[in-house]
Amino acid sequence: MTSLQYSKTIFRQLTTSRHSILIKPFSTSSRIMTRSDKILHLNNTNPQIRKAEYAVRGELAIRSEVLKNELANGAKLPFNRVVGCNIGNPQALDQKPITFFRQVASLVEYPEMLKDENAEAAARFFPKDAIERAKLLLKHIGSVGAYSHSQGIPYIRENVAKFISERDGYPADASKIFLTQGASAGVQLTLEMIIEHNNVGVMIPIPQYPLYTATLAVLDANPVPYYLDESKGWGLTTEELQRALDESIKKGIETRALVIINPGNPTGQCLTEQNMREIIEFCRKNKIILLADEVYQTNIYQKDRPFHSFKKILKSMGPDYEGFELISYHSISKGMIGECGRRGGYFECEGMDAFVLEQIYKISSISLCPNVQGQIMVDLMVNPPKKGDPSYEQYKKEYDDIYFSLKKRAQILENTFNSLEGCTCNPADGAMYLFPQIRLPKKAIEAAKAAGKEPDQFYCLAMLESTGVCMVAGSGFGQVEGTGHFRSTFLPPPELFDEFCGSIKNFHASFMNKYRD
Amino acid sequence: MTSLQYSKTIFRQLTTSRHSILIKPFSTSSRIMTRSDKILHLNNTNPQIRKAEYAVRGELAIRSEVLKNELANGAKLPFNRVVGCNIGNPQALDQKPITFFRQVASLVEYPEMLKDENAEAAARFFPKDAIERAKLLLKHIGSVGAYSHSQGIPYIRENVAKFISERDGYPADASKIFLTQGASAGVQLTLEMIIEHNNVGVMIPIPQYPLYTATLAVLDANPVPYYLDESKGWGLTTEELQRALDESIKKGIETRALVIINPGNPTGQCLTEQNMREIIEFCRKNKIILLADEVYQTNIYQKDRPFHSFKKILKSMGPDYEGFELISYHSISKGMIGECGRRGGYFECEGMDAFVLEQIYKISSISLCPNVQGQIMVDLMVNPPKKGDPSYEQYKKEYDDIYFSLKKRAQILENTFNSLEGCTCNPADGAMYLFPQIRLPKKAIEAAKAAGKEPDQFYCLAMLESTGVCMVAGSGFGQVEGTGHFRSTFLPPPELFDEFCGSIKNFHASFMNKYRD
Repeated sequence: MTSLQYSKTIFRQLTTSRHSILIKPFSTSSRIMTRSDKILHLNNTNPQIRKAEYAVRGELAIRSEVLKNELANGAKLPFNRVVGCNIGNPQALDQKPITFFRQVASLVEYPEMLKDENAEAAARFFPKDAIERAKLLLKHIGSVGAYSHSQGIPYIRENVAKFISERDGYPADASKIFLTQGASAGVQLTLEMIIEHNNVGVMIPIPQYPLYTATLAVLDANPVPYYLDESKGWGLTTEELQRALDESIKKGIETRALVIINPGNPTGQCLTEQNMREIIEFCRKNKIILLADEVYQTNIYQKDRPFHSFKKILKSMGPDYEGFELISYHSISKGMIGECGRRGGYFECEGMDAFVLEQIYKISSISLCPNVQGQIMVDLMVNPPKKGDPSYEQYKKEYDDIYFSLKKRAQILENTFNSLEGCTCNPADGAMYLFPQIRLPKKAIEAAKAAGKEPDQFYCLAMLESTGVCMVAGSGFGQVEGTGHFRSTFLPPPELFDEFCGSIKNFHASFMNKYRD
Repeated sequence: MTSLQYSKTIFRQLTTSRHSILIKPFSTSSRIMTRSDKILHLNNTNPQIRKAEYAVRGELAIRSEVLKNELANGAKLPFNRVVGCNIGNPQALDQKPITFFRQVASLVEYPEMLKDENAEAAARFFPKDAIERAKLLLKHIGSVGAYSHSQGIPYIRENVAKFISERDGYPADASKIFLTQGASAGVQLTLEMIIEHNNVGVMIPIPQYPLYTATLAVLDANPVPYYLDESKGWGLTTEELQRALDESIKKGIETRALVIINPGNPTGQCLTEQNMREIIEFCRKNKIILLADEVYQTNIYQKDRPFHSFKKILKSMGPDYEGFELISYHSISKGMIGECGRRGGYFECEGMDAFVLEQIYKISSISLCPNVQGQIMVDLMVNPPKKGDPSYEQYKKEYDDIYFSLKKRAQILENTFNSLEGCTCNPADGAMYLFPQIRLPKKAIEAAKAAGKEPDQFYCLAMLESTGVCMVAGSGFGQVEGTGHFRSTFLPPPELFDEFCGSIKNFHASFMNKYRD
């Protein structure tokens, strides 16, 4: 095989693999890069990274970037705009940021505007409470351009602790809170801490947010999948947890942690108190650390399914559960804030060994500190304007408008999916996604096979090419063998939402007509 | 041994170990956390993390935080301010940010100020070119609150490519540039990529910036130390590289990459062109990837030692070196910018296999994207105001003032160190640090031993307690066995610099008097 042939073969394998991750174009030089003449090549890079898959930014997302570029360069496509429903990225879909938050962020960047002699001019743009908050933050921070404490600015951690204790009715301790560059960074860091060797297992839901499988792959650990029951609104039973654990024990895996995503991603379900208590009992009985991904805690759409934090439920269970090991993650990227690009979040350690906390501090310190603007947004999230503050009314209105609009869009999209031939969709109790099941005709499944794709990936690719709507196939999240799903956010802007739903309906009808058995 | 005894023993081992990393206080609950009753405890966490050491934020830095808190709470100490010279954190030591950069950062946070109807009011704070730049950036970014492309915003990567090609006189390719959350994140990511198994070696300078040893420890790889020659201004010879490589081969280590920090950290030396060519030849001959940490490329203080990028030298070496694998790192944290808290930087891949780039993209995508404000600062760094722009004069003045002041402070501190009994210090060609050698009296060495400390650590701790000046002992960077050093930034503000140098002199004299043999 010549070098060129070798390259082409590998390239084809990559492009046709189930979750191929391609960035195009990496303009290669005139020389063909092959295994033989490079020190580092595909076959001798870190094998754990090679194994990792991250569908949310995989083939579909990369193809959507190509289409976006083509549109920008004047290409004629069947659509005018690429709509990125593959990822919960509200501000990329025109969601307006919370004004007060951005005012404070703007002021701390340029403290000249906070000077007394500029007060009149600054008042043209900034309300009094934004100016006061910016001054207060700078008093504690110094400059947003300086490295902070590696664990996060102590003053902001104190505010996070206050927020948690007010939310839950139980105390929280700033010294056990770590600010992070988004919840993902927190999950990666804590999993890295927990994975002692390649026989450690971590229980994860199926379907799951692929951060977990990707991170476990990189860390060379074992995902221990437990299945959510689609027929019961993506319900979670301790019987299923036990089955999954038993199976891992049979394989000799040392299962040490359990990931719960609540509200669920991609599945949108919200756990009941009773269910949460059972999960905590299960963990205690089996000596398993609970990792609670609660980034969607304010994206709650059903009155009968309010959000409860695991911290609160745990604390309500009394002294028998003292010392229970729980890590809870939160983020500024979701909720009504949606400040994804800023990379901010935190995790709280409950019941963790003090020496383990020291190790977490040390590993955090190697990366110096989370970015300070992200930390500031955490402060604003946990301590927004209060009733009576000059910015309160506007804050409340902006927050509620986004909330009610999301709730409405979730409902409209659910109805749309349930109206499609062969498609059923559970409602979203929470989060930003729907995860409908799609039953494709045999002909479509055969066409997918011929193209070397999973059927749901094939369907999503066809949708993207036809409508510009980018979703993620269920195969990227994990699903019961033989079923097909896709995940879509309901974030497209309200004024385009009918058009968005209409284009899905039209696409689906023509797809089904083309492939109907 | 009881639980409590066990805890205390471990605690003492930790606090007295050479590079103990302590965060105090982690307020533990009433229960004593021990190995026996926790799922995760010190002895079953990730052993690679346990092994990692990061002195820059280690015992000295942590103790300095405690002292800072004590001062804030009104404690009477022998000093009024803790001066953090342990880390290159200019804005924490009152360095003013570049006004234009902050104006743009402020405007993109709150685009309301960019609206036409607000032009007059905005002009009170913002010059025309800042407003134009903010508009241009937002046109390409959308919102700083939205996730960007995982590799970094394409428009900004194009500007980085332009900057590199103008700096070097050779083309650069935006598709091979990755924006990162600081250079550290880039180093971590690329090393993670390169480390295939625990037999891979990476050559690192001694003394080195401990990011490298810490990251290699976490990745379970082998540092292959080569020594810089202090007697020749921290010079680097290929003979020493060859010696280090030969030794690694003897041990059966597969050495795959070579880290060069230029200008040096902690050592401040700046490589000559001839030396750089020899290093490139060495790498080519031995099939080693060159990793060039060039974050101090604008911190250059000696006319006869200008900065050259490895990319430029490589490209000047002609077609024989085509396809040579080089990764170069840069950052917004250093230079005259000093925007450390923002976490921004980039790395450029030269000659890397396209499939490896795909893997780098994939691993980047799992963390979603570098924070957008950090990316914006990269744009400003590589594309500052030009002659004729409204902000140019101010930018030039601010930049030059910082530059000349740093150069002057480097000289003053070098003179101070060279005036100390038993202390010799090479000048800084570049970077932000001096790394003097200190010869301590036998009595001091014995006192250090009795305290369970390395002698230079003991000296630095004494200095901290006496003056509030926090430096880092040479043992944290690596040094020739039996020698002692410390690293100090020369960043304390100009108006306090004489006092700062005076307090070091006074401390040193009394320390030597106390321990003189």
